[in-house]
Amino acid sequence: MIADLKNWTIKESGFSEDKVTSNGNKFLCGNGYLGIRGTLEEFDKEYLPSINLAGIYDQVGNGWREPLNAPNGLYTRIKIDGVYYDLPKNEPVNHEQEVNYRHGIVTRITRWETRRGNITVTCERFAHYDKVHLICMRYSILADFHADVEILTGIDGDVWDIHGPHYDQLLFEEEDIFTATGITHENKDRVAVAEEISVNHPYERKRKKEGRKLLHRICLITEANKKIDLDKMVAIYTSKDCKEPEEAAKKEVREALQRGYEVCKSTHMNIWEEHWKTAEIYIEGDPEAMEALNYSLYHLQCIAPRHSDSLSIAARGLSGQTYKGAVFWDTEMFMLDYFLYTQPEVAKTLLRYRIDTLEGAKKKAESYGYEGAFYAWESQEGGYDACSDYNVTDVFTKRPMRTHFKDKQIHISAAIVYGIMRYVKITGDQRFLEQGGIETILECAKFYDFLLVKKVHSDQYELHDVIGPDEYHERVNNNGYTNRMAKFTFETAAKLLDDLMKFSKETIEKIEDNYDVERCKMDYREAAERIFIPKPDENGVLEQFDGYGKLEDASVEEVKGRLLHEKEYWGGAYGVASQTKVIKQADVVTWLTMFSEDFSEEVMLKNWRYYEPRTEHGSSLSACMYALLACRCGMPQKAYSFFMKSASADLLPGGKEWAGLVYIGGTHPAAAGGAYMTAIQGFGGVYVEDGELKVKPQLPEQWKKLRFTIKYQNQLYEIIETKDSAVINPL
Amino acid sequence: MIADLKNWTIKESGFSEDKVTSNGNKFLCGNGYLGIRGTLEEFDKEYLPSINLAGIYDQVGNGWREPLNAPNGLYTRIKIDGVYYDLPKNEPVNHEQEVNYRHGIVTRITRWETRRGNITVTCERFAHYDKVHLICMRYSILADFHADVEILTGIDGDVWDIHGPHYDQLLFEEEDIFTATGITHENKDRVAVAEEISVNHPYERKRKKEGRKLLHRICLITEANKKIDLDKMVAIYTSKDCKEPEEAAKKEVREALQRGYEVCKSTHMNIWEEHWKTAEIYIEGDPEAMEALNYSLYHLQCIAPRHSDSLSIAARGLSGQTYKGAVFWDTEMFMLDYFLYTQPEVAKTLLRYRIDTLEGAKKKAESYGYEGAFYAWESQEGGYDACSDYNVTDVFTKRPMRTHFKDKQIHISAAIVYGIMRYVKITGDQRFLEQGGIETILECAKFYDFLLVKKVHSDQYELHDVIGPDEYHERVNNNGYTNRMAKFTFETAAKLLDDLMKFSKETIEKIEDNYDVERCKMDYREAAERIFIPKPDENGVLEQFDGYGKLEDASVEEVKGRLLHEKEYWGGAYGVASQTKVIKQADVVTWLTMFSEDFSEEVMLKNWRYYEPRTEHGSSLSACMYALLACRCGMPQKAYSFFMKSASADLLPGGKEWAGLVYIGGTHPAAAGGAYMTAIQGFGGVYVEDGELKVKPQLPEQWKKLRFTIKYQNQLYEIIETKDSAVINPL
Repeated sequence: MIADLKNWTIKESGFSEDKVTSNGNKFLCGNGYLGIRGTLEEFDKEYLPSINLAGIYDQVGNGWREPLNAPNGLYTRIKIDGVYYDLPKNEPVNHEQEVNYRHGIVTRITRWETRRGNITVTCERFAHYDKVHLICMRYSILADFHADVEILTGIDGDVWDIHGPHYDQLLFEEEDIFTATGITHENKDRVAVAEEISVNHPYERKRKKEGRKLLHRICLITEANKKIDLDKMVAIYTSKDCKEPEEAAKKEVREALQRGYEVCKSTHMNIWEEHWKTAEIYIEGDPEAMEALNYSLYHLQCIAPRHSDSLSIAARGLSGQTYKGAVFWDTEMFMLDYFLYTQPEVAKTLLRYRIDTLEGAKKKAESYGYEGAFYAWESQEGGYDACSDYNVTDVFTKRPMRTHFKDKQIHISAAIVYGIMRYVKITGDQRFLEQGGIETILECAKFYDFLLVKKVHSDQYELHDVIGPDEYHERVNNNGYTNRMAKFTFETAAKLLDDLMKFSKETIEKIEDNYDVERCKMDYREAAERIFIPKPDENGVLEQFDGYGKLEDASVEEVKGRLLHEKEYWGGAYGVASQTKVIKQADVVTWLTMFSEDFSEEVMLKNWRYYEPRTEHGSSLSACMYALLACRCGMPQKAYSFFMKSASADLLPGGKEWAGLVYIGGTHPAAAGGAYMTAIQGFGGVYVEDGELKVKPQLPEQWKKLRFTIKYQNQLYEIIETKDSAVINPL
Repeated sequence: MIADLKNWTIKESGFSEDKVTSNGNKFLCGNGYLGIRGTLEEFDKEYLPSINLAGIYDQVGNGWREPLNAPNGLYTRIKIDGVYYDLPKNEPVNHEQEVNYRHGIVTRITRWETRRGNITVTCERFAHYDKVHLICMRYSILADFHADVEILTGIDGDVWDIHGPHYDQLLFEEEDIFTATGITHENKDRVAVAEEISVNHPYERKRKKEGRKLLHRICLITEANKKIDLDKMVAIYTSKDCKEPEEAAKKEVREALQRGYEVCKSTHMNIWEEHWKTAEIYIEGDPEAMEALNYSLYHLQCIAPRHSDSLSIAARGLSGQTYKGAVFWDTEMFMLDYFLYTQPEVAKTLLRYRIDTLEGAKKKAESYGYEGAFYAWESQEGGYDACSDYNVTDVFTKRPMRTHFKDKQIHISAAIVYGIMRYVKITGDQRFLEQGGIETILECAKFYDFLLVKKVHSDQYELHDVIGPDEYHERVNNNGYTNRMAKFTFETAAKLLDDLMKFSKETIEKIEDNYDVERCKMDYREAAERIFIPKPDENGVLEQFDGYGKLEDASVEEVKGRLLHEKEYWGGAYGVASQTKVIKQADVVTWLTMFSEDFSEEVMLKNWRYYEPRTEHGSSLSACMYALLACRCGMPQKAYSFFMKSASADLLPGGKEWAGLVYIGGTHPAAAGGAYMTAIQGFGGVYVEDGELKVKPQLPEQWKKLRFTIKYQNQLYEIIETKDSAVINPL
């Protein structure tokens, strides 16, 4: 199967400065603990290199709180015959960059012409898949002449930050092994990077401190056409990992050097290979889709927190500090299924993070005078909401605009409930409910119950003043998606309490001690029954929120044509979309996708047709929902382009990279997860009925065969589908 | 007493083009049917002349709907020895403009130097106080040499409009008497102006049509130092007044010419004189305040709809088309008391307009899916709401901004109820309730009752998503003023129903046929009890709305300093004031003023002190509420400057006149009404207790004596107060 994927390699030839940021994402490698942007070794912070760390944050002044980039232990540049050869300054004869996404190995090859001959730099590196603190790199030089080479390599402490600098202090040690330790501004966390090299050729070494860089100066003379390898081991530990991160990092480097680069690499590759045995998705007849899809899964895998039992994934994965490295509803609603079906233990880790941040969600609710759990819109450690009340800058006045993502996007709490219940459904792990799941669900139900309002002479319960998935329409009443998710929360909570006696005595006691069970059951049952859920109108269309139907019915193009500034915000009180029916992303369509059992195919189809032309798809979360719903409506061919858009989000150009002067680019793991869901549940037609795994495939025309492996309730199944057959084989 | 007021004259010497617009307001005269801006006779529309008509409107395209300015029958200019003498083109030697505000007579005197000598033009005019369709003008020329004079006078049909032109057609007739009839765009209403002159000197007359002007060309030779008077009678009728407005206007002109200018003038003056007998307020020791106050009353009198039994007053009176000539809450909450105490029949006319537009208010409610009566924020005929959803233009993008004055400023309906009940209280005219008052009140109660929401587990009723008097904070929950006004509405409705048996059999039947009386009583009683009314916090401060207390506590100056453009809107979603505690105008203070019986003096004082420094006073409605409450708190001296600000609103410069290119200037009748309330109820301390008129004066230091006449329950009283005495004498 590997052959079909052209060696599982994504390659880019030639160097263009314009692509430095997008290539940083495309050629990312990572292991869940850290992500290394696909930048070049000689880049300083101007070109956005980063070794982005999971789950550790810092805030400077009133700047946005964001995750840390570690001091760059990969920094390397060369001088040939006294002249530096660096990109982008020195134009190369040849330049290639590639990622082998089967094994998470990123390579650059650059050839320069010097006065005396050609030299080729090849650099291969990987974030060790097993030893997640370790990065290995082989920097090779091949000259076709006797070159006088000076390699400057070490740790660059002048880290790229969006709202930094985060290291108040930077401590260097130059003993046997270099270390650089950054001490953060806010919590005085320590981020220690250790680094050492070995070279397969005689050389002279000096140490050099250049500003915030601690460097080895390696001098040697090459033989013509003989490749010289400089192997480099870098390890990163933080004070969150252990008490003495410097020592731990040095130890890791020492051990890695002892094993040697080749051994490290083969271990690393073997584990990736093992992973793909069940993770790979095989599509016969459509190599392009197969490549995009598996490449998406690679990206999900690079950020999977396998090393932790309570950690989640940022909206831009480990590709940098965009969106504050915070966890959004993306994880539960878009990424979770991939992990549920392939590595349920990772799915559990993601949800454990939510259970462990319940206190933060309760605190957030309390800060607004609410009860229950109001999960963070942009969650960092402890559930701290990093979302600002001023999340967008007005391009005309340069003033921060009061936005309502944090205070009005209440559907986030229900996403947690949805995720937990999905986990329980797919894994069968009921015990997870007893490990904090029930309390989390009850607190979310309490939250919505507290927010419910009603007209005094009506029995209808409503949720007012919210933002739904379509963020362009702020402060609306009765967003259908939000109300339905709240209803789901109420139903789930009531059902759990109905079934309370099925749990352990300890659990029953704990819940009974903390909740008035009978009262909660009654309240949530009533809330679930009475909460207003929009009904299809005479055209079968569900109104996205109260009054949506009365808005101006302008086309997306028309609305776009009203922009006075290409970067102005479409939403908010006065945005070009705000008073029109144009929406940012799937909203009713997300609702229909998540709750398709509530609707006839006809209604789903009508809404798909109504909302699609009115959707800007201004978020990478949008396309996959349209793809999934198209499949539910029996339109796999309509779904296909949306699927490809999701699957190619990190492969093709077109993503938004800058908002004014702020870098907002990065990888799109939610789109990757959405592509997975579309492949498996949409085209593959996987579903669960009466506790049984079933499939009802709807392959796109060009797909002759679809083969994949999923785990359901602790059992692996291989599923093979063609246009007219489907087999589910237990493995 | 007249002597004290320096002949009741406001005068301005010298001519300055900058003052053309403000003088248009300062030297306004009117009679309730029409208002004539204090512009000069030779002005064409560039200088904003207008004869503004009450209660007749037109809309062109998507422009704002606005009241009509009649074709200008006063248009007059002169040529001396073949040379035009016009302001502002020809610089005068001397120029004066004045209004005798005791008799509503406006005069201009201009002297020019010509090559052969000096000429002086004196023009005196008035809107006839009794015959409200009639305008009389005497245009006099005095030359100190034998001047060859040509007077061009007639009707200028090229009318100044803000969102015009409103006359699709303009028909001229040149029979014995000139007429010009404008036919409106929207309703094909006819506005007919008739005009004729007489001159006390031999002359030659020709007729001349110059574009949209129909003119007499009067040629004569003056004798040196002999004044020549050209008397001009202009009459205006519309198709709303009668079927043949041209004929009616011509008849009026003919009759007036027959009587002659002097007779018309003396009749006019006599009736004004009669009016002042009871309207005048005498203040000993403070001529400045006395002048400003009586001048304010003059302005209220110029716009009093004495000729109708169902008509209200626009927010800018009859000074032009600003604010669409629409009726706001200003009438009931700020102007009504003046009429109640001096001319209750006019107060009745104002409220009759509201009762007669109940259907419009019900239609507005229905258009939002509400029940009951939602009165127009900017009311025109039939209660049509002229308020746009886009009432402000963004100065940065030039785009219309979605504003919420129309849809969220729900306190307007309660203002009508408040006005009706105040009318009944002061006049004792219970029958008014049976003439539509009860239904109006019940429909307003129904409206608020429909809007009430509650959290499902709370018994507290709330009003969400509103705008209070302080318009800078949009879409807030539980604005204290609004909630209290709604409570008042509920209480009033419930009380009326409790007392239903006191009304006539016919009334009882009508109400019982249309309302479930028992149900309404119960509902409104409950609503009044349960609606949330903010309580003073630990500092005695009432929170203006939910969450106000958490806003940034920046000073008015600080907030002003953040403006990037002097004309940018302070409110809306992103205005400089929106996220701060800075408010546009009295809000909690208006609540406290209207319901001071609910609070201790201490609480009122604390709130006055808290909110005053946070108030921009960006509306002319603000100062008088601070003045009134200061009096209620025993601080007449603090009240004084606010009182003077209100009383001088049309006298002193400083009002906002332009918003971008749109003229928003005009007179400020609400401020005038507020000044009256402060004088009578604040300083004068007039109040009603147990159905009895009482006074508890608190005169400002410099006021030695205050004397005024008011009507209470059909009985006139003269009230004379000094620092240590107060007498109420029935007249």
